[in-house]
Amino acid sequence: MTSEAALSPGLRTVTVRRRGERVAQDIVVVEEPLEIRVDGRPLVVTMRTPGNDEELAAGFLHAEGMLAGGAGIASMRTVAGDRTAAAGGGAARIKVTSFAGDRVEVVLPGGAAPESPATEPEREFRATAACGVCGKASMDDLDQDLPPITPIEAPVALFETLPDRLRAEQTLFHATGGIHAAGIFTLDGELLCVREDIGRHNAVDKVIGHFVLSDALPLRDRILVVSGRAGFELVQKALMAAIPAMVSVGAASSVAVDMAKAAGMTLYSFAGPGRGNLHV
Amino acid sequence: MTSEAALSPGLRTVTVRRRGERVAQDIVVVEEPLEIRVDGRPLVVTMRTPGNDEELAAGFLHAEGMLAGGAGIASMRTVAGDRTAAAGGGAARIKVTSFAGDRVEVVLPGGAAPESPATEPEREFRATAACGVCGKASMDDLDQDLPPITPIEAPVALFETLPDRLRAEQTLFHATGGIHAAGIFTLDGELLCVREDIGRHNAVDKVIGHFVLSDALPLRDRILVVSGRAGFELVQKALMAAIPAMVSVGAASSVAVDMAKAAGMTLYSFAGPGRGNLHV
Repeated sequence: MTSEAALSPGLRTVTVRRRGERVAQDIVVVEEPLEIRVDGRPLVVTMRTPGNDEELAAGFLHAEGMLAGGAGIASMRTVAGDRTAAAGGGAARIKVTSFAGDRVEVVLPGGAAPESPATEPEREFRATAACGVCGKASMDDLDQDLPPITPIEAPVALFETLPDRLRAEQTLFHATGGIHAAGIFTLDGELLCVREDIGRHNAVDKVIGHFVLSDALPLRDRILVVSGRAGFELVQKALMAAIPAMVSVGAASSVAVDMAKAAGMTLYSFAGPGRGNLHV
Repeated sequence: MTSEAALSPGLRTVTVRRRGERVAQDIVVVEEPLEIRVDGRPLVVTMRTPGNDEELAAGFLHAEGMLAGGAGIASMRTVAGDRTAAAGGGAARIKVTSFAGDRVEVVLPGGAAPESPATEPEREFRATAACGVCGKASMDDLDQDLPPITPIEAPVALFETLPDRLRAEQTLFHATGGIHAAGIFTLDGELLCVREDIGRHNAVDKVIGHFVLSDALPLRDRILVVSGRAGFELVQKALMAAIPAMVSVGAASSVAVDMAKAAGMTLYSFAGPGRGNLHV
């Protein structure tokens, strides 16, 4: 949590006082809003760590089933937010949006071009969920059609090595101690991609979105490794990409266990050297 | 991660295999959908740990500014989900909703009574965000009017003791190692209420909702302690309740630091015995 060198856009220095005495500089993870628009209309805002925003948008849309049919994305562009506005706004009204807000504009095949920023967008588009759950209005919205997955034999000894190998690549975590990561490995243990974000769901969207953009889905012979807990929304995102195995450093939730079992996905929680729970 | 005794509704035993050999029982945190309806219409679904659901609903509505004006809640009732349905549904369609879904029906003053469950609810009500962010469709939806807070002198030595005192009350955490907690303390360090949930935002909604239901808001001379990181949505929820100080075991995000500073809230991150960062 030191180093005053050139910081990644995902990091920022802040002033802190330790033990009530010493003033020091610390590094925190940047958390800023990203708006995802589809065919000119606002779809969702997620608080994310800047970087790989188009992967995040692609992964999010894929997880929501909006890229079904394999037609993919017609075009995508990133519009940077205004970082010159003063942060905050006094106690009466905190303007989070003044903390900068980037935008990714996605056009689906056959979709309309993005509207001019001057045009007030319509709001009828249903707000959907950056974390896979929140923002859904009723129970039925939670269920999704999932592609079939091909179950694998669990390479438990390999699974136990993956969290350390993921952590070795977590550059933002080393600087701050406060960021999640998700990695995609081959069944032979080769690390193909790692992404970090303050939101667990965003890290998973980014790493899966990386493969959406390189047209490499479904991920039938891949392992998803997450630095935190295995919750419902992460298992659902993995299943949407047909990933047959998921390894988590933290605990699994009840519904994560149930979903993985129902889908035939291998789930290994509390993974680390010499330990882990294979959910059977 | 032992104990086969009577489990809280927030816990469940699952079968695991360790090191690829031994079959054992482990305890996981229950994660199930809760639908919150307001005046008969579905507002939001959150994946939460069962327990204190009406507090969760009250805290959520308060954080969203839906209880503004102090009129409060006219009535509230909980409708239990159907837990007899078979879990899962095969690989083609995982029915999360079959994992049971409870519902809290809230009536606001002057609002319509809940519709009969047989009636298909209308969907025009804007889906809003269980985590305070996700599900919001555009940037402007993030900004909220906040009540003024009364800044306090930071009792740093006290702050450093609070995470251990919170943890001592985290019964579900001790059983599973995988659940968040939020606690409300007085400025003298008295613990008034602690709530646990698989979602950080839900734990905060529950603990603040406890005081909403006892008509004890604003919490002008209280400290919010959270077991994890201090992110944007938790600071925003605390500010909505006029809480002047927040202590987190984990890291603070950039926007959490900015919001706290703009509002005059004391934020103490990475708190523990002999350590912590006072954001100044």
